[in-house]
Amino acid sequence: MKASKSKPTVNIGLCGFGVVGQGVWRHLKEKSEVFEKKLGSLFKISRVAVRDMAKEREIDLDPSLLCEDPLEVANDPEIQIVCELMGGTEIAREVVLAALSKGKIVVTANKALLCFHGKEIFEAARKHGGHIFFEASVAGGIPIIKALREGLIANRFSLIYGILNGTCNFILTHMEKEGQSYEVILDEAKRLGYAEADEALDVDGWDSAHKASILAFLAHGKWVSTDEMLVEGIREITQEDFAYANKFGYSIKLLAVITRDFETDRLFINVQPTLISRRKVLANVDEVYNGICVCGDVVGTTFYMGEGAGQNATASAVIADLADAVSVLNGSKHPLFSGEISPVEPNEENSLKVSTLGEVMSKYYIRVAVMDIPGVLAKVATILSNNGVSIASVLQQEGTDGTGASIVLTTHKTSEEAIQKMVKDFETTDSVLSPPVLLKIGEFED
Amino acid sequence: MKASKSKPTVNIGLCGFGVVGQGVWRHLKEKSEVFEKKLGSLFKISRVAVRDMAKEREIDLDPSLLCEDPLEVANDPEIQIVCELMGGTEIAREVVLAALSKGKIVVTANKALLCFHGKEIFEAARKHGGHIFFEASVAGGIPIIKALREGLIANRFSLIYGILNGTCNFILTHMEKEGQSYEVILDEAKRLGYAEADEALDVDGWDSAHKASILAFLAHGKWVSTDEMLVEGIREITQEDFAYANKFGYSIKLLAVITRDFETDRLFINVQPTLISRRKVLANVDEVYNGICVCGDVVGTTFYMGEGAGQNATASAVIADLADAVSVLNGSKHPLFSGEISPVEPNEENSLKVSTLGEVMSKYYIRVAVMDIPGVLAKVATILSNNGVSIASVLQQEGTDGTGASIVLTTHKTSEEAIQKMVKDFETTDSVLSPPVLLKIGEFED
Repeated sequence: MKASKSKPTVNIGLCGFGVVGQGVWRHLKEKSEVFEKKLGSLFKISRVAVRDMAKEREIDLDPSLLCEDPLEVANDPEIQIVCELMGGTEIAREVVLAALSKGKIVVTANKALLCFHGKEIFEAARKHGGHIFFEASVAGGIPIIKALREGLIANRFSLIYGILNGTCNFILTHMEKEGQSYEVILDEAKRLGYAEADEALDVDGWDSAHKASILAFLAHGKWVSTDEMLVEGIREITQEDFAYANKFGYSIKLLAVITRDFETDRLFINVQPTLISRRKVLANVDEVYNGICVCGDVVGTTFYMGEGAGQNATASAVIADLADAVSVLNGSKHPLFSGEISPVEPNEENSLKVSTLGEVMSKYYIRVAVMDIPGVLAKVATILSNNGVSIASVLQQEGTDGTGASIVLTTHKTSEEAIQKMVKDFETTDSVLSPPVLLKIGEFED
Repeated sequence: MKASKSKPTVNIGLCGFGVVGQGVWRHLKEKSEVFEKKLGSLFKISRVAVRDMAKEREIDLDPSLLCEDPLEVANDPEIQIVCELMGGTEIAREVVLAALSKGKIVVTANKALLCFHGKEIFEAARKHGGHIFFEASVAGGIPIIKALREGLIANRFSLIYGILNGTCNFILTHMEKEGQSYEVILDEAKRLGYAEADEALDVDGWDSAHKASILAFLAHGKWVSTDEMLVEGIREITQEDFAYANKFGYSIKLLAVITRDFETDRLFINVQPTLISRRKVLANVDEVYNGICVCGDVVGTTFYMGEGAGQNATASAVIADLADAVSVLNGSKHPLFSGEISPVEPNEENSLKVSTLGEVMSKYYIRVAVMDIPGVLAKVATILSNNGVSIASVLQQEGTDGTGASIVLTTHKTSEEAIQKMVKDFETTDSVLSPPVLLKIGEFED
């Protein structure tokens, strides 16, 4: 039953033709016959907005497709799907809102855009009948958005946690493997193209926070701003911490954790370097891989892993979104694909609140560099006790450089508020040589 | 923007009201408001076919919903979605074909049905405009069908492999942990409800083979019959094998492996107990969990894990299918959801062949129980050499029960054909006490 009629053409506009845009272009070309056969439609990239039309490119684009204003692409009446692959949150926001306000379909890989402007963007989609797909925004090619939105639709999610930033995971993996300092490994990551020239967004945890906000929206229907999260990075971690982790069977991973308490109706997102038992699958997700645990009340714990970034993995996700977009163009009224998306439980929009730091309880590993003088341990212990931080174990040892000493403590469950006050008190204590290094001790049931 | 208009009702017929059927019923009831809100439709279970209407049930069903003939449900013009949750391949086949021939949507969890009759079922869907969803048929609640069909649509799959049977994984995990024999742990699994009274389908590898055939169809568009696969189970594995595995840093897992060679256009499915390095994430998937590695040419290697069976995990997958079915009822013409599904590359339907055993190359661990007499190692070595099986390492030790000796060999890459001939030769050798235990040595690149 081969259809002889000609296949409908889907006109795609690319905004941004960098690493990801070129990957999408290439894979769509290479597999055009496959997609035509699988989807019954022909993908056609009919317009490409680039920053500089005069620039020489490896890919030989028909010059008549090119323009320099992405809004031209967004507003072009011929274009049905706008792929926003520029990055940034200003022009990208304008482009996405323009396309949605025309009822078009938007596909984006832009996690920062969704984190900061997701509410406005989804409202625009709803208002104008537009649709937005964003599989590539979290965890590269792992179909985690589709899993949360569709595959696990029967579930409420008390806990979602994982490694969402490949750069940090590369650095932590290689610090452990090679026994080298953060600075040395960061340079290596930059040389290999795994870290940006300005690494701050990655290593300070913000990229993970942006991605976590998207997962939290899908799971709980609420956009949590980064101001309401607890976000810490990996810059302060040293080989001393890896020695401790190794001794007690832990990995150190930068984890984003989305916790929902259904009884008190509280939601919290934290991004923190965390000790997790080596026996956990997540602890063995190394190199640039991402890994996400999703705990659903019906399905139990499920886990997803794959490359978190890169041209091909991201292109794989963008193309999956394009395929879903075809079903919308073919007349699907699936509310999960549209601006109508409303993944919250009934009547919870107003009651769901973000937890305060006083409500969030964790166990901690704390390493404090101190002067090697009498009474210093008592001083440190007093600071903890004054803040109500209860000590589970203590280890004091000579500093590795021979100048000071190191005190490593683990705590019982303590509020984040108490921990933060404790950190402040350390800052004003003479015999403490530098800000303490804090690692959350991850205790996940599964 | 709450809609005040009444939501459309979707009429569902359940065929089978056992463990899974009751789970689906319960979760649909408990979360009806959520689904209504997310999907814009009301799910209504309007008919339930049971084996015995007189049977007392924990769930209090309206007796007017019940019938004993599942074909009545399949043919009921009011019913839009038929959930086949009976199991078996005879009546289930009739029910599914009847529903599809009326252009209805079928949701099934029945892997054996799809493995044996998938071709006929998909043809019926295509012919009559029916649709078939089967997320629950493989790996419980893990949305692996959706990942292969939609999330990874940009990819060709050279390799898909994983643990697809929770019963076998429970047995292997506990044999290793508890140091007990297969028989003891099998009894434990039966007591805990993790193994059926007749365990053959699980422990002999057939359940994994059925599931692998479904994944292979999704990935390569071809139904491979179990006759064309290499299927081995776990009954012969002993603590001697675990001791060896432990010594060399391996786990023993029953793996289903789907290999596609795009150059020679060959496809092969094997289900075999396999040694895999403990450093692999898959090696650490324990207990009743399933885990699947999917290697795509665009996305790279992705990995999925979750509970492989059970009332809730299966219900989670069935409900995800019901949600997708709503998009079909709402007018989606997404070819991926319909009988039009044709996941093959263009012009490959005819050229794609299943590999012969002569073409499939593996490394093996072979343990042979022999009489402890002079010349026995030479005899064993000669059998291997006569069959062209090249030895990589040998270890001979006294038998654990003091009567015979054990020879443990590992081989270089050898064809499956040679291995099978070697096994036959062992059978006719006097000094070999029992059939050799074979474990494939898993070498996966990622």
